[in-house]
Amino acid sequence: MTESAILLIFCPDRRGLVAAVTNFLYQNNGNVLHLDQHVDAQEDVFFMRVEWDLDGFGVPSSEIAARFQPIAARFNMTYSVRFSRHVPRMAVFVSKMGHCLYDILSRVQSGEWHVELPAILSNHPDMRSVSEKFGIPYHEFTVTKETKPEVEREQLALLQSLNIDFIVLARYMQIMSADFVSHYPNRIINIHHSFLPAFIGAKPYHAAYQRGVKIVGATSHYVTADLDAGPIIEQDIIRVNHRDSPDDLVRKGRDVEKLVLARAIWAHINHRILVYNNKTVVFA
Amino acid sequence: MTESAILLIFCPDRRGLVAAVTNFLYQNNGNVLHLDQHVDAQEDVFFMRVEWDLDGFGVPSSEIAARFQPIAARFNMTYSVRFSRHVPRMAVFVSKMGHCLYDILSRVQSGEWHVELPAILSNHPDMRSVSEKFGIPYHEFTVTKETKPEVEREQLALLQSLNIDFIVLARYMQIMSADFVSHYPNRIINIHHSFLPAFIGAKPYHAAYQRGVKIVGATSHYVTADLDAGPIIEQDIIRVNHRDSPDDLVRKGRDVEKLVLARAIWAHINHRILVYNNKTVVFA
Amino acid sequence: MTESAILLIFCPDRRGLVAAVTNFLYQNNGNVLHLDQHVDAQEDVFFMRVEWDLDGFGVPSSEIAARFQPIAARFNMTYSVRFSRHVPRMAVFVSKMGHCLYDILSRVQSGEWHVELPAILSNHPDMRSVSEKFGIPYHEFTVTKETKPEVEREQLALLQSLNIDFIVLARYMQIMSADFVSHYPNRIINIHHSFLPAFIGAKPYHAAYQRGVKIVGATSHYVTADLDAGPIIEQDIIRVNHRDSPDDLVRKGRDVEKLVLARAIWAHINHRILVYNNKTVVFA
Amino acid sequence: MTESAILLIFCPDRRGLVAAVTNFLYQNNGNVLHLDQHVDAQEDVFFMRVEWDLDGFGVPSSEIAARFQPIAARFNMTYSVRFSRHVPRMAVFVSKMGHCLYDILSRVQSGEWHVELPAILSNHPDMRSVSEKFGIPYHEFTVTKETKPEVEREQLALLQSLNIDFIVLARYMQIMSADFVSHYPNRIINIHHSFLPAFIGAKPYHAAYQRGVKIVGATSHYVTADLDAGPIIEQDIIRVNHRDSPDDLVRKGRDVEKLVLARAIWAHINHRILVYNNKTVVFA
Repeated sequence: MTESAILLIFCPDRRGLVAAVTNFLYQNNGNVLHLDQHVDAQEDVFFMRVEWDLDGFGVPSSEIAARFQPIAARFNMTYSVRFSRHVPRMAVFVSKMGHCLYDILSRVQSGEWHVELPAILSNHPDMRSVSEKFGIPYHEFTVTKETKPEVEREQLALLQSLNIDFIVLARYMQIMSADFVSHYPNRIINIHHSFLPAFIGAKPYHAAYQRGVKIVGATSHYVTADLDAGPIIEQDIIRVNHRDSPDDLVRKGRDVEKLVLARAIWAHINHRILVYNNKTVVFA
Repeated sequence: MTESAILLIFCPDRRGLVAAVTNFLYQNNGNVLHLDQHVDAQEDVFFMRVEWDLDGFGVPSSEIAARFQPIAARFNMTYSVRFSRHVPRMAVFVSKMGHCLYDILSRVQSGEWHVELPAILSNHPDMRSVSEKFGIPYHEFTVTKETKPEVEREQLALLQSLNIDFIVLARYMQIMSADFVSHYPNRIINIHHSFLPAFIGAKPYHAAYQRGVKIVGATSHYVTADLDAGPIIEQDIIRVNHRDSPDDLVRKGRDVEKLVLARAIWAHINHRILVYNNKTVVFA
Repeated sequence: MTESAILLIFCPDRRGLVAAVTNFLYQNNGNVLHLDQHVDAQEDVFFMRVEWDLDGFGVPSSEIAARFQPIAARFNMTYSVRFSRHVPRMAVFVSKMGHCLYDILSRVQSGEWHVELPAILSNHPDMRSVSEKFGIPYHEFTVTKETKPEVEREQLALLQSLNIDFIVLARYMQIMSADFVSHYPNRIINIHHSFLPAFIGAKPYHAAYQRGVKIVGATSHYVTADLDAGPIIEQDIIRVNHRDSPDDLVRKGRDVEKLVLARAIWAHINHRILVYNNKTVVFA
Repeated sequence: MTESAILLIFCPDRRGLVAAVTNFLYQNNGNVLHLDQHVDAQEDVFFMRVEWDLDGFGVPSSEIAARFQPIAARFNMTYSVRFSRHVPRMAVFVSKMGHCLYDILSRVQSGEWHVELPAILSNHPDMRSVSEKFGIPYHEFTVTKETKPEVEREQLALLQSLNIDFIVLARYMQIMSADFVSHYPNRIINIHHSFLPAFIGAKPYHAAYQRGVKIVGATSHYVTADLDAGPIIEQDIIRVNHRDSPDDLVRKGRDVEKLVLARAIWAHINHRILVYNNKTVVFA
């Protein structure tokens, strides 16, 4: 399998941006595997993702960021360099419901994703047996209003000790503090069980049933301090009708949640997402 | 083509409802073409739509409602009888945008729908030439805050003089008064350009763009006094991504609006919709 | 939870069928929970599924079939009676790919399905560890052209000893003999990784890539002696584009396969499927 | 509105392609509006679409192709230059069914598409009144097996006299000769009423009904000498079920056909399609 590097960039739009980046790669003998760019014409912002083969590339991986720095400075770029050989480390938070957790564990264990999963954290004991079935350490934290700040400190310590790169909330039914979120900006992925911004908050399927909608959906998004208002990564829906009880909506919705969360995780671990202005650019 | 009758019923759920209705048909030599029933287990309400062949049926069409009355009374049914031979008369309200109007005119003129369209009403002159191209009389009403009550009276008089059965708001950008709506309960179909309840009100595509959603949608619903809150008949969506400008969302959304409105009109003119508790039962 | 009975019927269409069935239920004090019927107007065949509450029903469960027999005889009905309390016993056949198996195991173990899974059968060792992780006995059979008849006899003996009600082929890459299939008519569910009848046979994703399609799909169907030609239960699709390599089609398709197979299994264990003329009626 | 130029390129893949093209634009003061590239890793072919603002661009439009020629030669590129100011001229062929024609006429007349429609050609009189309603000249040709070659010559003469850029077959039920097709390579867009390659040939909805599929679809493709086997541009589907008669499939399918054809036309007139190896690259 090819070892590749990925450059993610955004900056004010102006002439010559693509030329500058692709010249840098060409002059160092880089072979572009994928290149995608986007200009937000409303905001005059330029976005780019370029992936190239490291085989024969003239700059050692450890020096790429530094060697690219002058170009970035000239164009006022925010940028990051990622490597396909790096295996991101993911932690999953879960409460009582297992459908997203099962789906994640299956994809991790079958090798579908290039990711490590060193820990599952929960505020309930329910998913311990599932986690142990898959051989993943399960960390249970009893959360009350009073203990929450302390619990979050313990959780952060655990995550840091495990070198966690990003967090997935797989139907974790606790709101995280702004402080907690600030440690993992655009690195906490949540699944909300409605097509946001419809049905923000608790019990969206029951609200959908009450409203008599003909579609229900799910939304994966990065967590920000503002509940259910973070940048949307992926959404999908399923048709429902008058025959569907609230329980049927829950049942049908589960399958959408699993897929929408899995697609977001896939995009994240493949370095396909840029966040700007509380919105995502997801390179296909 | 077969002439058929359709019975639409709802009532408190209890034993023997289907047997009572189907016995009535069987004893009068009725051949059931389609039967669909639904029990809302939350509300304990029974819904039924049954369509049968009038050929050989032992009760003259004009007497069916009366002869069914004792059964209805016994079970406390709300019911109505419709006939496939009756061609409903539709009026279309439009403002400046033509995409839904074109779609409706095409379906009417090509014979896709079993419906008459004797009038198009508008608060703007823009769609006059389209209407005239299709030979449909176009009635223009200048609406201001002051003249609105008077205009609505004139519109009602026109609609009544034309024996209009139901009204379609094909992107009509005016809010109708509660009084106007009360003349056509569950008989005014609106198309809203978002998947309600997301993005209620004006400029939903721009709001969707701001929020960074990955799907946009459209909703057809019966108009009630409460803006964008009437019973939903049909919804559908289309995927969008970061490349789509607000204009792209408008463009992609137009096609969804046309389809969602057309499906609602089709269900309405085929007597497939029952309304209860601000929700619809749409028999497939 | 309510205990219910389900009657599945098909017969030549004629007047009085619904009345006859619902009178039988009403006279025995049955409360209809769901009733759905369908007339195939091309073939003049009547289909019906009715589910009723056994609480207070005047006929003991063990006698329902016999007591219904005279009605069935009068109308020349093919019928079966099922009970919600009966938990069907499923066997899963698998080869080397695990995505459908993981999905099935997750749904079984989380209690999403009302089903028992006493055995997984395979022609390869690859999925043994997965099965054992979930505590399900794994039976491996080495299949060659020569041993196939003998292996099928052993498999049948195993299935019969375990009282298996139906079989799921979760990407089992072996063709079953007509004799084997004849032991489980309309009780073997296969998942084919294309939207049939497109791309029958082996390597459908690669064929789809070669043809340059813009959608790929999956089809679940009952297995008949004729490869990939059995009655279709469920299909779904996902959009693809020129960026997708054959491997991407495989990856995207896996998620569709899982869903389409799971929906078919759900419909089967809820007694929602009737087969007639190599087509299915799937009551929603 | 911005005047822009579009460069469409394909060539053998190698290092430096994007740099070469974007340097050409940058050195001539071009501001890139959209850039998309794709490498077919199976075939080692590079594809690119780049659109830039002509305002301030240092090369007159009439000289762009010539000035780009040395770069193209160096990399063995097949390329074309298009201009947003050019309004393509489209001819529509139709037989007896009007749904696609109505949809096209509505989009042309409402200004949704930047296109001219100087002629509608048909082998039947049925759509004359529709065409005339919209003020488009209608040319009727009686086609028999004997007259077909002569008719095609007349049609070609007409199309050439009208400077037609591309042709749309809007449910035109005649097969065109290889000779006719050769005059408009990758410039004749057909709509086929199935998700190809399923149900090639005549009566696909009836074949779909017989097979008992749960989805029906439509496919737009460029016409080649090989029936229904040309490069696919766009496909979409709609769910159906056992309740749908063949007529229902036709009715539901019509809406999919209209959309799928319209999306293909939109992509074509916006110069978003490259054809290679009987497949399309459709830049989003």
